[in-house]
Amino acid sequence: MLTEVLNQIGELYPEPMEKAQKHLDGLIKPPGSLGVLEEMAVKLAGITGELAPDLSKKTVVVMAGDHGVTEHTISVAPVEVTAQMTRCFLKGLAGINVLGRHTGVEVKVVDMGIKEDLNLPGLIVKKVRPGTADFTLGPAMSREDAIKAILAGIEVAKDLIAAGSKVLITGDMGIGNTTPSAAILAVLMDIPVEQAVGRGTGINAEIFKKKIEVINKGIKINRPDKTDAVDVLSKVGGFEIGGLTGLILGAAAQRVPVVIDGFISTAAAMLAVTLKNEVRNFLFPSHLSEEPGHKLMMEYLGLTPYLNLKMRLGEGTGGVFGAFFLEAATKVMREMGSFASSEVSFLLEERMAKVF
Amino acid sequence: MLTEVLNQIGELYPEPMEKAQKHLDGLIKPPGSLGVLEEMAVKLAGITGELAPDLSKKTVVVMAGDHGVTEHTISVAPVEVTAQMTRCFLKGLAGINVLGRHTGVEVKVVDMGIKEDLNLPGLIVKKVRPGTADFTLGPAMSREDAIKAILAGIEVAKDLIAAGSKVLITGDMGIGNTTPSAAILAVLMDIPVEQAVGRGTGINAEIFKKKIEVINKGIKINRPDKTDAVDVLSKVGGFEIGGLTGLILGAAAQRVPVVIDGFISTAAAMLAVTLKNEVRNFLFPSHLSEEPGHKLMMEYLGLTPYLNLKMRLGEGTGGVFGAFFLEAATKVMREMGSFASSEVSFLLEERMAKVF
Repeated sequence: MLTEVLNQIGELYPEPMEKAQKHLDGLIKPPGSLGVLEEMAVKLAGITGELAPDLSKKTVVVMAGDHGVTEHTISVAPVEVTAQMTRCFLKGLAGINVLGRHTGVEVKVVDMGIKEDLNLPGLIVKKVRPGTADFTLGPAMSREDAIKAILAGIEVAKDLIAAGSKVLITGDMGIGNTTPSAAILAVLMDIPVEQAVGRGTGINAEIFKKKIEVINKGIKINRPDKTDAVDVLSKVGGFEIGGLTGLILGAAAQRVPVVIDGFISTAAAMLAVTLKNEVRNFLFPSHLSEEPGHKLMMEYLGLTPYLNLKMRLGEGTGGVFGAFFLEAATKVMREMGSFASSEVSFLLEERMAKVF
Repeated sequence: MLTEVLNQIGELYPEPMEKAQKHLDGLIKPPGSLGVLEEMAVKLAGITGELAPDLSKKTVVVMAGDHGVTEHTISVAPVEVTAQMTRCFLKGLAGINVLGRHTGVEVKVVDMGIKEDLNLPGLIVKKVRPGTADFTLGPAMSREDAIKAILAGIEVAKDLIAAGSKVLITGDMGIGNTTPSAAILAVLMDIPVEQAVGRGTGINAEIFKKKIEVINKGIKINRPDKTDAVDVLSKVGGFEIGGLTGLILGAAAQRVPVVIDGFISTAAAMLAVTLKNEVRNFLFPSHLSEEPGHKLMMEYLGLTPYLNLKMRLGEGTGGVFGAFFLEAATKVMREMGSFASSEVSFLLEERMAKVF
């Protein structure tokens, strides 16, 4: 089934992209003056085949999971916070709820591998296991469980798209999950762990050093194969990361745009792109995380984040703004006047044609 | 009357800022993890005295004016486009209308000095004169007219705030107005004109060279006094720039936050800050314009733009997004759960207190 989904992920449609560019150039503004919004509009046309796709229904998927490496106290927060924050998401009290409401994005929460068993109304339960194993002692999960996590994410994407979602946004919750994300970055880009690791939600120098040691140990003992994303996920990843990889693949297979959030989401996107390079065609960046490794990840994906909000919360809090900008791009296409339809000087259009 | 307004512009309230910071640190997130949104929330508290001010009514003011220097063909577009675009603003067809609707910002349009006489419903007419004089031959306007433009802007701010606006956003329309804006930048920062000038809406190398010559000539012949903002405005400015300077002053005097848009708006903000340094307290950045000089302007004002959308349209199209982020910051303050009110581990709060 994974192979089937990967086979569905293809190229952008060139003709709608040309039409979109032409439409943009005829709008009452200097050509290109809406910058990134214009780039978004063209790419969206290439994804959907439509000049002004309806993106009114937007969904952020917060995938939650726990991590065996938290045994080493590599995080500020205790492990039970994953479950506690999941409760807050369902109550509508967390940062992502506030910013989701503000940007017109619905919030869905998925238990991919929370330690505690939560049977809460609204929670989508796809739990593979109650937390990964400590990857300094062996793989974080079996290869079978890694595939199970990815397939669960694909299924979530499928269900949400069937229910009308036109954009999916990646969000995460998992105490300790900057550690597996940094491990994935270090492995896939083959860089020293020191370059991949950041301060997470705010650890001190001592914990920072330990975090590097833990990741180095995990990579050394497991020897993940950087050309095999499932191997990397199983050895040093996490269930919510696997779920997000699947969500991205599932959206791309159905030509639905995906907005990537911060460090953890982007690790998942790197795995998705490793599985199938054309996934890039369906990805949109949003903010640049304060995690220093995020910049490297974005370069790897060939994406340029345009929001510098100095955020490091996760949950999809940057991504929902990204989806808001995508929707703005579709409204530019749908609602702005053109030289042809307005009274704005044809002289302007002509002179511009001459200048460029 | 100008002196009176300047005297009203004061410091941020320290106590509400401390309270806002304390409130933020008690919310269910790692301290500081919402980055710029948290900085906004604290500054807004210092401006308004409220922890979560209601910013639901947001207004972008697009000030329009024509420029005598367009005689030298320093712009891509013919001068009549200022009037044509003003008609489009009132019809709701322009970029700012689309993005204003998307971000929940109302659009107001002011004729500060359009060449043509437009008597259109909805247009606020504060016309000082039908276009400035060519500043290569003498001052763009008289000192009296410069003050008149500023006072008109103050009046617009006053009326909008009386009508309920809680945030004002600066917008501009004026063919050729990157030229006076670059002149203002060069004079106030005392830098070579070459560093201040950009390609505007997209001029070629030849026009670019002429633009630099025109500005150098204007500065040489008029010798504006960089310590006297009214002198700078009158000699190398524009009516819409003066109007925006007044709008900013009027908002600051009434402790209403102002979001600054791109190159022209920021030139106006520099003039406002030159008139009264404390104006800085009421300013919020939004996007970084593609005009290279905009970066210098922002540094001068001590503001860091957080949107990199590669836009160069003006009209307030970046500023409306800035206001949308400000409103997000107030919702974080109002709607997010706290450690105290939720079930999120006090252990987390304690451990964080230890780490920081």
